[in-house]
Order: sequence, then C-alpha cells, then structure tokens
Amino acid sequence: MSSELTLEQSTKSFDGYQYVYSHDSYTVDCNMKFGIYVPSIADKECVPLLIFLSGLTCTEQNFITKSGVQRLASKYGFIVANPDTSPRNCNIEGENDQWNFGEGAGYYIDATEGKWSENYQMFSYINDEFYELILSNFNVDIDRIGILGHSMGGHGALISFFKRPSQYKSVSALAPICNVTKCEWTRNAFMKFLGQDENLWKEYDACELVNSYSGPIPYAPILIDQGSDDKYKEDYLFPNVFLDACTKASFPIHLREQIGYDHSYYFIMTFLEDHFKYHKNEFEHSD
Amino acid sequence: MSSELTLEQSTKSFDGYQYVYSHDSYTVDCNMKFGIYVPSIADKECVPLLIFLSGLTCTEQNFITKSGVQRLASKYGFIVANPDTSPRNCNIEGENDQWNFGEGAGYYIDATEGKWSENYQMFSYINDEFYELILSNFNVDIDRIGILGHSMGGHGALISFFKRPSQYKSVSALAPICNVTKCEWTRNAFMKFLGQDENLWKEYDACELVNSYSGPIPYAPILIDQGSDDKYKEDYLFPNVFLDACTKASFPIHLREQIGYDHSYYFIMTFLEDHFKYHKNEFEHSD
Repeated sequence: MSSELTLEQSTKSFDGYQYVYSHDSYTVDCNMKFGIYVPSIADKECVPLLIFLSGLTCTEQNFITKSGVQRLASKYGFIVANPDTSPRNCNIEGENDQWNFGEGAGYYIDATEGKWSENYQMFSYINDEFYELILSNFNVDIDRIGILGHSMGGHGALISFFKRPSQYKSVSALAPICNVTKCEWTRNAFMKFLGQDENLWKEYDACELVNSYSGPIPYAPILIDQGSDDKYKEDYLFPNVFLDACTKASFPIHLREQIGYDHSYYFIMTFLEDHFKYHKNEFEHSD
Repeated sequence: MSSELTLEQSTKSFDGYQYVYSHDSYTVDCNMKFGIYVPSIADKECVPLLIFLSGLTCTEQNFITKSGVQRLASKYGFIVANPDTSPRNCNIEGENDQWNFGEGAGYYIDATEGKWSENYQMFSYINDEFYELILSNFNVDIDRIGILGHSMGGHGALISFFKRPSQYKSVSALAPICNVTKCEWTRNAFMKFLGQDENLWKEYDACELVNSYSGPIPYAPILIDQGSDDKYKEDYLFPNVFLDACTKASFPIHLREQIGYDHSYYFIMTFLEDHFKYHKNEFEHSD
C-alpha cells in the first residue's frame, strides 16, 4: 500500500535535483511533505539512502535550505530524504499552543492517548510508510540505508535504529535529545502522547533502548556530535547520560564535543560531511 | 569617519565565525545590518575580502543562511562581507508598496530624486562607507578585494567594479541584471530614483560602463554564471546584451550557461565555489 506522490518542488542543485513531494499518509491521516535529494548517479544505479530527521519547529524546508546537504549528497552519491516533523493541519485542539508540542513537534513516537493517537503516529510513519515510500519510488540500495538527525531528530534517528536494526545499517546524530524521560520538552509531550505511566515512555528513550538492543554492532562507534556552546546541552539533551548508557551496554559510541559550536544549522553544516563519511564507512563494512 | 559596530549575531561555523553587525550609517541615514564571515586565519594575518551583494527582497540573512558560503570562506581563508540591499525603516511613503522597489530593492545606485535622495544612496554606501568600515574593523588585505553578487547584486557588483577599478581586484556575478535600461524592474525603479532622463541611468548600466571602462584588465575573463532555466533570464537579466557589450569593448568575459539551473540559492550554492576560485586566481595574478 503506497500513496501517490505529488511533486511540489524540483530544483537542480549540484549534479542532481532537490525535490519536495507531498502525499496523503494513511499512517498519520493527513497530507505530508518531504524533501529528497537525488544525485544524477541514481539515474543509472541504485545508491545509498540517508534519512535525516529534523528538530523541533522544522518543516521539510529547514534542512534542505540551510544545511548544504545537496553538495554532500552529490559528492557522495547518496539519496537524502527528509520527512516533516509532525502531522499537519489535523485540527486537533492544542496542537499549535506550544512551540515544542504538536505541529512541528511529533517526537517520532506513536501516540496512544485520546485525541493525539489518530494522527501522531510518527514512529510508524517514518519507519514503515515513509521508509517504504522512498524504497518503492526511488533508486535506493536497500542494503545501504542510514538514519541521522538533529536534536529531536537525533532522538528519532537513535530510537529508529535501536528499534528497527534490520532496516538501518548505520545511525548518527547531531546534538540529539538523548534521554527523553529526563528532558522537560519530551516529558511534557510524552505525558500528552503516552499518558502518565513513565514505563511506557522508556520504549522511546535511546538510553533505555541501547540497553536492550540485540541487533548488529556497528563497524565503527556511532558518531554523535555535540556543540559545547549549545544552550540546550545540559538541561535538555543529556549526551553524557547516553554515553554512560552505551558504555554500560558495551555499545560503541564516539561522542565528540565540538568546542564553541551552538545548536543551529551553522553547527550542522560544519559537521554534516563527517556524518556522510561515517555512514559511507559503515556501508562499506556492512555484511 | 567610521560608525560604531554593534554585534547582533556571532555563530561558530567551520573554523571561523559568522557575524552579523549593525551600525548607524551616515550615508543612507539609518541603521544598517551586514553579515561577515571571518575565518580563523584572519586572527593571525590579513586575508582577502569578498563583498557579496544580494538580490531583490534579500536582507543580510539570505546569503549567510542559504548559500553555504561559510565552508568556502573557511576553506579559502577569505573574509566575506555581505551588506543589506537597501536602507530600512526610513518611513518614506511607497517604500514598501512593491517587492521590487524600495526596501529590499535599492539597486546599488545613488538616488537623486525628491524623497528618495536622502536615504537611497546605496552606491556610495557600498563603495565608500561600507568598504571603509570593513577595512577599518577587520583584518583585510587591501590589495586582495573582490566583489560579486546575485541578480540585482550581480548588477551592483559589476557597476561597482567598473566605476571603482582601484578598489576591486576582481569581479564576478551569478545571474546578474546586466542591462538596467532595458529591465522592467530597474526601469520602474530608476524612473523614481533618478528621474526621466535615461541618459542619467546609463551611469549605472554595466553594458554602458564596460564601454567607457579604462581600468586594469582582469587576468582571466570575468566569470558570469547564468542558469538556462532561470525564468528571469530573457526579460530581466539580458546576459547576452552584456556579452555583446563586453566583446565590443574588448573586455574579457566568460559567460557560462548552466543547463537546468534556475535563479534560486540552489543555483548559487552550486557555483559559488567556482567564484571563490576565480577571485583567488585574480588575487594571485594581480600586481
């Protein structure tokens, strides 16, 4: 079951095209947009895919406008697909009251509570419908698929990898929200999406999931970049809690503190190429 | 006479910082912002400067957000400064009535007519006040200064070079408005800024200025990139009129038609590195 794609934007950039498509999603029950860069080499052969998950307040536009991803996708010959961060225009009361909850803030989880549960199914959207949609419409090598993200999207990438190890060869993150059960943003959102039982929240906490992970171990330690001047680092992101959890679980992680960098796209654009190199190396060393 | 700079934004990006400053301009009689990227090498030695002039509707943010310039400025060790495209908040009746006239649309000329003449002095602002401001506040090598721009800013770069050959070692442009006396946007604006005598308009027309230019000849033909799918090419930009004017004037030009590219920042980001290389080569071969 695959919904039809409508082309919203097609712009030549480097040797390929930056596209934006929309489609009617059966998972989140609304029209969804996503960006996808297709390098010219994908006209001739199937190529690796990176899925990039964006942070709070983003649409599909932020990443494709500000990160410089097109040069890298062209250089490395990767398709890069970036979905939206939440359902849109579902007319749910309260979905636009807070910048860090609802529209632009779906946290890549499947809501179970009341009015949110029909549309806010972002985990299933990303890892089932969107994943299949990209595979069935673009020239992707199914054995070379990686996932990465920024902030809320870093959280999304980590939990997608830990919960679906057969779907992703590699994962990395830029300034991810690492420990959702401690972060005030996610605590507020999970209370509404999942209810008061915090045991259910652990299903979407990278620090918990790494502990029960039994999939393949990455060839190189997973790459996490964190700016030292990121104002959210201490109270919202908790990179060191994740580092401890990985260490305890004997899961290999390379957490890099990038001195002087903040939480913005200027940080992302600086280190994004290292993440391409990381995923390329994983693809080359996977079975 | 140099006004004081106020730091509005400071963000680490690649090995340097993307800054935004504001200052009270005596030339355009209002507060003006500009972007400037300073690579770390400029802490130790004076470095080349590129001035980038933006197109219609832009503020100082568009170029620094969308072009990927920081990677290039860091790689090549250039300071890159980008001013705003017009005076702001001058409370002149009509300055915000049209997207292609007034705020965001100063056309880099000095207005002579009525209410516009006090503030809309963008040619003098760029080539006198702003130029001096950058030189007196940043570690710039005065012998290695180039200017470039996009669309309206390409026009601005070309006329600045032709009118001030002693100030700029090199010039290039991306999809410039080449022939202002034929372009509907500029005809509308020049009528208001300069009055009905079209002979006065020629003072700001690159196709006219190249004919009377008597400064140094560039080492390599000046680089002009033009997307073939740019919807403004035929009726507003007139690259071939400029090519003919340069040929007639025996002025060396390399006009490249870039197949499939449009007028957007996706076009700019694709070819900006070639422009860095062009200016670097000019700096290395200048006297």
